[in-house]
Amino acid sequence: MFTIYDEQKYPNKMTPLKIIKMGSDVGATKNMVVYESGDDIIIVDCGVGFPDGETLGVDVVIPDITYLLENREKVRGIFVTHVHEDHFGAIPYIIEDLPVPIYTNRIAIEFIKERIKDKGVKNPDAVKFNLITPETPEVILGNFKIKAIGINHSVPSPMGFAITTPQGTILHMADYKIDWTPVLDKPIELGKIANYGDAGVLCLLSDCLGVTADGYTKSERTLDESFDHFIGNAAGRQLFVTTISSNVSRMYQIINAARKHGRKVVFSGRSIDQSSQIARELGFLPFDSDTFVPEKEAKDHTQDSLVYIIAGCYGQTGSGLYRLSIGEHNNITLEPNALVIFSADPFPGVEENVERLLHNLTVSGAEVLYSEIQDNLHVSGHGLKGDLATVSALSKAKFYIPIGGTAAKMRAYTNMVKELGVTKDRVFELLEGQTLIFDEAGARLGDRLELKQVYIDGRNNDTLSPIVVKDREQLSTEGVFVVFVPQTQNGNILSDKIDVVTRGFIYVKGSQELMDESRKYVTKTLNKLMAKNKEPAALKKKCERELADFLYKKTGRTPLVIVHNVQI
Amino acid sequence: MFTIYDEQKYPNKMTPLKIIKMGSDVGATKNMVVYESGDDIIIVDCGVGFPDGETLGVDVVIPDITYLLENREKVRGIFVTHVHEDHFGAIPYIIEDLPVPIYTNRIAIEFIKERIKDKGVKNPDAVKFNLITPETPEVILGNFKIKAIGINHSVPSPMGFAITTPQGTILHMADYKIDWTPVLDKPIELGKIANYGDAGVLCLLSDCLGVTADGYTKSERTLDESFDHFIGNAAGRQLFVTTISSNVSRMYQIINAARKHGRKVVFSGRSIDQSSQIARELGFLPFDSDTFVPEKEAKDHTQDSLVYIIAGCYGQTGSGLYRLSIGEHNNITLEPNALVIFSADPFPGVEENVERLLHNLTVSGAEVLYSEIQDNLHVSGHGLKGDLATVSALSKAKFYIPIGGTAAKMRAYTNMVKELGVTKDRVFELLEGQTLIFDEAGARLGDRLELKQVYIDGRNNDTLSPIVVKDREQLSTEGVFVVFVPQTQNGNILSDKIDVVTRGFIYVKGSQELMDESRKYVTKTLNKLMAKNKEPAALKKKCERELADFLYKKTGRTPLVIVHNVQI
Repeated sequence: MFTIYDEQKYPNKMTPLKIIKMGSDVGATKNMVVYESGDDIIIVDCGVGFPDGETLGVDVVIPDITYLLENREKVRGIFVTHVHEDHFGAIPYIIEDLPVPIYTNRIAIEFIKERIKDKGVKNPDAVKFNLITPETPEVILGNFKIKAIGINHSVPSPMGFAITTPQGTILHMADYKIDWTPVLDKPIELGKIANYGDAGVLCLLSDCLGVTADGYTKSERTLDESFDHFIGNAAGRQLFVTTISSNVSRMYQIINAARKHGRKVVFSGRSIDQSSQIARELGFLPFDSDTFVPEKEAKDHTQDSLVYIIAGCYGQTGSGLYRLSIGEHNNITLEPNALVIFSADPFPGVEENVERLLHNLTVSGAEVLYSEIQDNLHVSGHGLKGDLATVSALSKAKFYIPIGGTAAKMRAYTNMVKELGVTKDRVFELLEGQTLIFDEAGARLGDRLELKQVYIDGRNNDTLSPIVVKDREQLSTEGVFVVFVPQTQNGNILSDKIDVVTRGFIYVKGSQELMDESRKYVTKTLNKLMAKNKEPAALKKKCERELADFLYKKTGRTPLVIVHNVQI
Repeated sequence: MFTIYDEQKYPNKMTPLKIIKMGSDVGATKNMVVYESGDDIIIVDCGVGFPDGETLGVDVVIPDITYLLENREKVRGIFVTHVHEDHFGAIPYIIEDLPVPIYTNRIAIEFIKERIKDKGVKNPDAVKFNLITPETPEVILGNFKIKAIGINHSVPSPMGFAITTPQGTILHMADYKIDWTPVLDKPIELGKIANYGDAGVLCLLSDCLGVTADGYTKSERTLDESFDHFIGNAAGRQLFVTTISSNVSRMYQIINAARKHGRKVVFSGRSIDQSSQIARELGFLPFDSDTFVPEKEAKDHTQDSLVYIIAGCYGQTGSGLYRLSIGEHNNITLEPNALVIFSADPFPGVEENVERLLHNLTVSGAEVLYSEIQDNLHVSGHGLKGDLATVSALSKAKFYIPIGGTAAKMRAYTNMVKELGVTKDRVFELLEGQTLIFDEAGARLGDRLELKQVYIDGRNNDTLSPIVVKDREQLSTEGVFVVFVPQTQNGNILSDKIDVVTRGFIYVKGSQELMDESRKYVTKTLNKLMAKNKEPAALKKKCERELADFLYKKTGRTPLVIVHNVQI
């Protein structure tokens, strides 16, 4: 164990610091870290996650904020590092229960306001926003002093935070890379990081997503040449570029290349539309308005005089590009000689969707350029091993916490800093809910919070009970088996009227025999159980369980069994 | 159009050749190609596919053989290129309906026999197998003469087929690569292919999966060094290697390295066990039996004296490695200093599962080596652009059909042969069900068969109705909503007894109001409809539809609605 801080510098040494990792450790999403010192809590990031595997009607998951609600009087604010859904997207879902000020950059403020409106938050104007940028002064909230550090990523104005606490200074470096020639932002403030390093950093929380690849991430600027080349050589052709809607600097590059080659730009798809509008209002896309053509008017232009910037780079069903690929887009028709450029990389979980989209586009006759066949269409927003090692080394931190990656990535980060001379006991690979305590004895793991899965139903923007999700899980592979048991007022079961309905279980027409057997089995079971004088709810449950066993023995499947009494 | 064949050579020029692509064009699976000439049909490969996205209780899909059943008297045999599930796995499901002889190599014969036994095919001994290898003479079946060509892949003894027809010679080259130093097999017979090319090839059907990557696939042999290195440096540690069970030469390499470093080998997992047993019986793993330790006895050995070859490289839930990773393996306990080597690459659709497995293993404290951090643990069985171009060029075929890849891969193959001077009209990117006709006029697309999805339920090894699958799809995201309508003998509805049950839709405790409204809505709707004197089935359907609309308006969700009359 280490004694890790300087008594002169932090005389108030009795106030320990608690860090809680609220974000996911399986995917790299649902980002949220809680810092607690004495009577003060600040939150960094508040993002959505994406459920894995089957969707079951769940669109996103959000952090479980039970702990924060239990300590609501302590919470001073939410700091958002950058404008990606997995870093800010959960705010609309929690802000009514936890009405605290939000500190972030201009573009994130606008995006969050939009999302709060979309969600239908009551009294949206009551949500308090505070601008924080690398240029604004330190924010002081109780035991915390927070200063922003300019970094690079794939959205405008991303920030790291230097969080000074009674225990020492924390550097919170979520998604970042080193880019000396960014398109819209300034290069990462490595000097500032070095200064904090020289002054003494207690702990570095660092992005670890790209740590398994050697070298440094390429600059966003390197794509200028690609867009110039591909747009310049597409004379006579309809042209689409798809990218993630928040990547405003990518839009800037595409628009620049389009203008150079005499094409106007069509923003296509709700997310791209919303994002480009905010970006234009904030001055990130300083082009004359005659640069742009509204999607609805695009069909009135010759198609080779346009570049469509279109949503759907992850193959999302329902996205503009998806609808285009199956000929169901309202305003745009894919021409046979179209060129579609994917300026984005798929990630685990969306690869199948992207494959299907590539398939549809190819079959429709379009030429498609994507990362697998063309490696100069996209650069990552995440640093590779070189970027991450640079920041680690400059921070000279006593302790390290890799964030924003799976357990395997965290382990790879640990191995990387080991190469820099950091011993394993100075790195904490925190799982979801894990707390870490800094006090005079050094750093040690605290309790692990038991976090619930909080599901959001995209259809109505509301939370979804885990019971409903669990039922859907069973329904999705096993189907449902419903038994109606008519019962007279005095509780007699009308055995000959018992009826069965099933869906998604077996094909009924071929299974009349099983239906008949089930009816008989239920009658027998109910009579047996009723003889034991069970109370109705217990009886129902027991009958459902026994019938489920019976069906499993008969078919190898366990449908969701509902035994329902009908009082007549 | 081309006149593509030599009148002297094929005097019987009136018999056209029909090729039908039965396999999937979205995934690279469910491989099957049908060749029809006059009264003769032969089939090449008969594999399973994997359903995409949600599983819905479907384990695999198989080709729709309706066309073959309609022409059953023509079908002369099934030729299997190699022992991968997506090339032979559907045989047990179709062989009873289509009892034709199977032509393949020794190891595939044994695997197919096992699967036929597993499936419970009645009268398994009636299935007729014929050995075909590059050394056996030409097989003559009606209008077809079939000769095997030795190739390389990631399973023992893979073959291509030269299929001579009245229209000319077809080269059928499913999954392959060029390997001059294979582990168990001989190098690919490029000379034979060149000879066919010189004599005249009508059409080359070629693997296209690896065409988007430049260069040549590395030899299997290059992994010898890796296994020697990693096993040699794991002194004192428990050691697992996971790979796909059919990759016998990979097993051979691992066993060799294990022996060199004084470790015995444990085969772990049903598929690995079955596969290694067949491989040993056929002499592919010619090691003394004291090289091996049965899984059940492994715990009696010091763990650092063993190498486990364990199933689960794709993160399959229920696999040995998965159970090990969550501490639920019956015979093996993961030690804290264990080393787990993944000698396999994930593919779209399994990436999330593999991530979860890596996560579990890492959290359990194991060190995990996988392709993302270590690029010398696996080589692909598929040729890259270089391999594929070599075979294309040597074949000098008039026409080309890329197989075993998505539409996007097929397009990339077309672009590759274009670079070799093949014009676009000589390449056919066939979609599922597409027929291609060769006759005196050249080659032209015929009808496209409408193929059904044939789902197999792994639980009982039987086909699953598409209706059931469709219902499960809806149930999985929307849940179920059941309405009981008690009715007297003379058809009167007992409105006050109408009852509602719902699962997986909304959380009932919070939605009592909606339940009440629904009851009222159904009563009203039924009365309205009954006034119109509808016949019962139509009435039920109409009521279900109206209630579904009502619920959608109220909740944004469309549960599977069942309105059920209970006669009392």
